[in-house]
Amino acid sequence: MSIESTIVQMAEAARASSFEIAKLSSAKKNQALYNIAEILDKEASFIKNENNKDLILAKEKNLPGAMIDRLTISDVTIKSMADGLREVASLEDPVGAIRGKKIRPNGLEVSRMRIPLGVIGIIYESRPNVTVDAAGLCLKAGNAVVLRGGSEALNSNRALTDLTGKALLKAGLPEAVVQLVPVRERAAINILLNQHELIDLIIPRGGEGLIRFVAQNSKIPVLKHYKGVCHVYVDEGADLETAKNICFNSKVQRPGVCNAMETMLVHKSVAKEFLPAVEKLFSDAGVEIRGCGETCRILANAKKAQEEDWPAEYLDLILAVKVVPDMSGAMEHIKKYGSNHTETIVTSDYKRGRRFVREVDSSVVLVNASTRFNDGFQLGLGAEIGISTSKLHAFGPMGLEELTTTKFIVLGDGQIRE
Amino acid sequence: MSIESTIVQMAEAARASSFEIAKLSSAKKNQALYNIAEILDKEASFIKNENNKDLILAKEKNLPGAMIDRLTISDVTIKSMADGLREVASLEDPVGAIRGKKIRPNGLEVSRMRIPLGVIGIIYESRPNVTVDAAGLCLKAGNAVVLRGGSEALNSNRALTDLTGKALLKAGLPEAVVQLVPVRERAAINILLNQHELIDLIIPRGGEGLIRFVAQNSKIPVLKHYKGVCHVYVDEGADLETAKNICFNSKVQRPGVCNAMETMLVHKSVAKEFLPAVEKLFSDAGVEIRGCGETCRILANAKKAQEEDWPAEYLDLILAVKVVPDMSGAMEHIKKYGSNHTETIVTSDYKRGRRFVREVDSSVVLVNASTRFNDGFQLGLGAEIGISTSKLHAFGPMGLEELTTTKFIVLGDGQIRE
Repeated sequence: MSIESTIVQMAEAARASSFEIAKLSSAKKNQALYNIAEILDKEASFIKNENNKDLILAKEKNLPGAMIDRLTISDVTIKSMADGLREVASLEDPVGAIRGKKIRPNGLEVSRMRIPLGVIGIIYESRPNVTVDAAGLCLKAGNAVVLRGGSEALNSNRALTDLTGKALLKAGLPEAVVQLVPVRERAAINILLNQHELIDLIIPRGGEGLIRFVAQNSKIPVLKHYKGVCHVYVDEGADLETAKNICFNSKVQRPGVCNAMETMLVHKSVAKEFLPAVEKLFSDAGVEIRGCGETCRILANAKKAQEEDWPAEYLDLILAVKVVPDMSGAMEHIKKYGSNHTETIVTSDYKRGRRFVREVDSSVVLVNASTRFNDGFQLGLGAEIGISTSKLHAFGPMGLEELTTTKFIVLGDGQIRE
Repeated sequence: MSIESTIVQMAEAARASSFEIAKLSSAKKNQALYNIAEILDKEASFIKNENNKDLILAKEKNLPGAMIDRLTISDVTIKSMADGLREVASLEDPVGAIRGKKIRPNGLEVSRMRIPLGVIGIIYESRPNVTVDAAGLCLKAGNAVVLRGGSEALNSNRALTDLTGKALLKAGLPEAVVQLVPVRERAAINILLNQHELIDLIIPRGGEGLIRFVAQNSKIPVLKHYKGVCHVYVDEGADLETAKNICFNSKVQRPGVCNAMETMLVHKSVAKEFLPAVEKLFSDAGVEIRGCGETCRILANAKKAQEEDWPAEYLDLILAVKVVPDMSGAMEHIKKYGSNHTETIVTSDYKRGRRFVREVDSSVVLVNASTRFNDGFQLGLGAEIGISTSKLHAFGPMGLEELTTTKFIVLGDGQIRE
């Protein structure tokens, strides 16, 4: 069978199964999640054996160490996947919730009912745990899912989805609710992105290259962020101890992720006091500073920032630093170079805090808190399938609710239009 | 200047102005809406003169009468546009509303703030009143708008947007908040649909051909419905008087619109009594019935329906009728031939009413009410910019809220991630 007909058949099966799962009770869906968790725990050796096949191939191909790390499934990874599923089972089911109920003057009762989106395609890179995490969230929200993981993880992903399929059948759900594209060829992605009659949403997860490829080639709506160029702005009159903690945490606590700070903006009136104080912390942690002219005058050891540093997503222990004349200058910089992802102001001023919150056009805007809080778990969504920096449907971290939509329900007693 | 650079410049100006309007108070936006209403009232003769230029060209080109009707701006049209703007001014401003506020265990206060989408492109056909109606709604929701009306209405649309621009300036708003693509060439649409860095959303309004063209060529998210193949299902044991009224109203009250019934599904146990009774009403109103075999056995005058009648959107006094064995049969028919737009069940049975509401996958699902209620005004949204039958972002009629999104606001006291 050609790759195209394989994928079309999968998408058709996913569509058909989506109508089944949309009708299921929360209890049924939770049972399926518990079953998957159980089989993962029980079949840990099988999973690790299959994963080992991928690891051998990866080493033969001399893939970089960081990639091999991400590809590796350990007992800890398996436990964390299984526990994650049990946690998703414990979350409230968004499907069926009613909101905005009102009675119209003619007596019609109008409300919105939350319903699944239908079929979701997830396109991702090497971490095989995404296979289970994403499948669990889609399933809980009543959707079918078509997974396309990295070719280097095919054996691992196949093992995980084969086990998932068995667990689904045992819970009385159609196996087609969770499917893996079983081919290594990249052409499979283009074919998948063409199934706009069968797939409702695509979520790409991985590097900027993969995400741009998906966005440019998809005929299906895509929820994504390309990168996180996150800023902390230290305002005039800010508590500098607080500012130091927030900047340090935003940069250093986990530098390789999208919600880490990449550029620090400092009001000119506090730069001379703040920059040397925070430089000490950063240099102890091995952070390289690339500063504007004023920053370099204050910090003798700072490198000079180039134009390309301002829009850079380093994902590393490097920080761009700019001294700004005022808050408007900081906001102009964010508008020009930011990625609509996450921005923090550290301030003691009520009015400027409010203005920053209102006017900064980012998916998460914070006052006096670390950028690292842009995360579905940290913000109380209970889960996270990704972060969107485009504004349609979802803006910011996406939890279970963002995997659903609403339809209008109208209950009448024979009403007609006059 | 080339068409391309004209449109790119417009989109850039729209983007720049969108940041201005996003910040405006409701009072300022309402003042602008009142100003536009006032200038339309005052400049009625100018508008009609410019409209007359389009009408003369349309007659020279022998455009169909219905199209000339839709193109014509009368005093009534002008009054209705101006009154519409005043009504939009009176609606609650969605921007700035806070929802879902909660305190996290670490003391962070997390909420979502409603914000404008940014820049919206509207692509529409001959009715020039869409120019004013759409501009008013986009403006109220804090968005800039780029309008591309039908080439046959260019003089009319230009007159309306020129006046709008004057009214905006008088209210202190940037003129670029409402702009019209000033060229007749269809290539302008493709160029517009390519501006995904500058435009956030495209809403096409018009015939299925235009909408499919837009959806297939857009790099920007599109909210749309292709067609409305709406069903009424008359259940076993339904009150047949109610069923008659609802079916008649759904078909006849305004047959040329997307929420009119196109196919009537009748449970076999009531067909013999119901069909002859409703046929009388329909034939008096000039409705042609195209029935399944069983329908034709009961109604001697019915034409035989062909396969192409089931997915047909007649927008006319024609009705497809099918007798079904049970509610599952009705729902299977809707799933196979429907357009996810509007479906009604007429029933007296609690359980079947609930099942229909839960399982029918349409943007508006009604019990014992006319399909004609799928309308933003009728459902209490206060306004309507269009109807979406795709599930991302909005499903069903779209009002002011659907022209916005939310961002996360996080207020802290120095919190960092552990």
